[in-house]
Amino acid sequence: MKKVIIIGYGPAGVTAAIYLKRTGIDPLVIGKDLGALDGYSDLVENFYGFSEPIEGYKLIQNGVDQAKNLGIEVITDSVISLKQDETGFVVKTQKKSYHSEAVLLATGKTRQTLNIPGFSKYRGKGISMCATCDGYFYRRKKLAIVGCGPYMLHELEYLNRISADVTVFTHGNELPNLTENPVVFDQILSFKGDDKITHIVTNKGEYPVDGVFIALGVPSSIDFASQLGVVVEKNNISVDQNYQTNIEGLFAAGDIIGGKLQIAKSVYDGMQAADSIYSFLKDKSKKA
Amino acid sequence: MKKVIIIGYGPAGVTAAIYLKRTGIDPLVIGKDLGALDGYSDLVENFYGFSEPIEGYKLIQNGVDQAKNLGIEVITDSVISLKQDETGFVVKTQKKSYHSEAVLLATGKTRQTLNIPGFSKYRGKGISMCATCDGYFYRRKKLAIVGCGPYMLHELEYLNRISADVTVFTHGNELPNLTENPVVFDQILSFKGDDKITHIVTNKGEYPVDGVFIALGVPSSIDFASQLGVVVEKNNISVDQNYQTNIEGLFAAGDIIGGKLQIAKSVYDGMQAADSIYSFLKDKSKKA
Repeated sequence: MKKVIIIGYGPAGVTAAIYLKRTGIDPLVIGKDLGALDGYSDLVENFYGFSEPIEGYKLIQNGVDQAKNLGIEVITDSVISLKQDETGFVVKTQKKSYHSEAVLLATGKTRQTLNIPGFSKYRGKGISMCATCDGYFYRRKKLAIVGCGPYMLHELEYLNRISADVTVFTHGNELPNLTENPVVFDQILSFKGDDKITHIVTNKGEYPVDGVFIALGVPSSIDFASQLGVVVEKNNISVDQNYQTNIEGLFAAGDIIGGKLQIAKSVYDGMQAADSIYSFLKDKSKKA
Repeated sequence: MKKVIIIGYGPAGVTAAIYLKRTGIDPLVIGKDLGALDGYSDLVENFYGFSEPIEGYKLIQNGVDQAKNLGIEVITDSVISLKQDETGFVVKTQKKSYHSEAVLLATGKTRQTLNIPGFSKYRGKGISMCATCDGYFYRRKKLAIVGCGPYMLHELEYLNRISADVTVFTHGNELPNLTENPVVFDQILSFKGDDKITHIVTNKGEYPVDGVFIALGVPSSIDFASQLGVVVEKNNISVDQNYQTNIEGLFAAGDIIGGKLQIAKSVYDGMQAADSIYSFLKDKSKKA
């Protein structure tokens, strides 16, 4: 059982880790492979302390090294689900599961989109990014899930419980793990329908569907948060003045909570959130 | 006439300058000689983005270089007074005077003290750090001013208006500028008195005094702020949610406004203060 798991090793996550470490709490920091970070090749010139502009990618790497050099445990893995149990939180990654008393979501904000014609049009009209959130509305329907990795399998497990007709679309990718569901390996060309989605169009044909669940790559933390019933407003996770979400022990900081999408603000958030997490854990241990 | 003068080129001042520059406003940043910075040789390991601990001094230098590389005007000089006129603010340094529409105080916090026995005991009981603030209570009294540079001369000018008996104590230093006041070059050994100060004790004798004004080195921004009637609470400059003091157009950010004395917080302050200064200047130009 960890005290705190920090999901995300950007400015907010690493700063929170550094400040927590200074209070004597050893956080576990889980971040995505740096190679997978999009949009971080831009030069940063407005964050204090660097005489020359620095690549976003390099800054993130510096932060990870900084945390490690201070003795903080940092691992590279992708979180595919976040759940609560009686003792706290269960963070499931592609490789294993971790338990903790508190969780800080500091994954930044990825504009989750799919560059396939019809995606935007039918998102929310038959296309969903979250099986746990929206699956209920598709009970016993003809469903498709798009994906090929552990996150897809995690979502598929849920969909198989609500429908006996779920087809996996790998969108041209291989499928490393076996599944008993039917699998279509075609490249998806478009999503088609009228008011709602009716078909997936691939390079080999058209497939009728009632609902499509996208589970490509790994979920965003908005997805985890949604799974737990966290209040999300305008694509920002809502937190109180202590950076705590509506779920006790679940905190969020950085771009994901909205406001200025600036490193200076994320770093500040991280520092403040660390304070709140420290207080939360202290109160919790007093009650125990 | 400058739009904004930023006093202090630490994390808050430089960050504010960078963000202002990005809005198209060219600030002038005035900071003290880096050699004069005390307490900045400590290693910084909790500010995000540096894989190895960095000397405070080096970080400040990086920040100054960063500002200059972005085309921001940064000068090294010491501010000795801050006044208001009908068009805005007059910032007087050791070398010259500058006018601006707005001022940001971001000098950090120097614990102003004097390592002479009796100083702490009689501070506020006959020893003052600000002629403009406290001079009134010492009209026509026997006064001493301790100092040797332009700041001392600035304060002396004021004291000469309220008393005909002001002696300059250089505390063993030379006096580069002439003055008509009597000058004592002795080393001060202690301040002596009963409830209040009564004597300055030097290596050559004792001098009776009613009041002693300390004007060694350069004033702190708490001193400037006091000169203007800014509300100071517990040695912190009071600001509203827009980082504005009770004087319109005078802003403050960083350690000087209190809160966490952390670089992460100063950088955040600087970013937020820049926003407010931008809005202030925009509103002002609309009215004009």
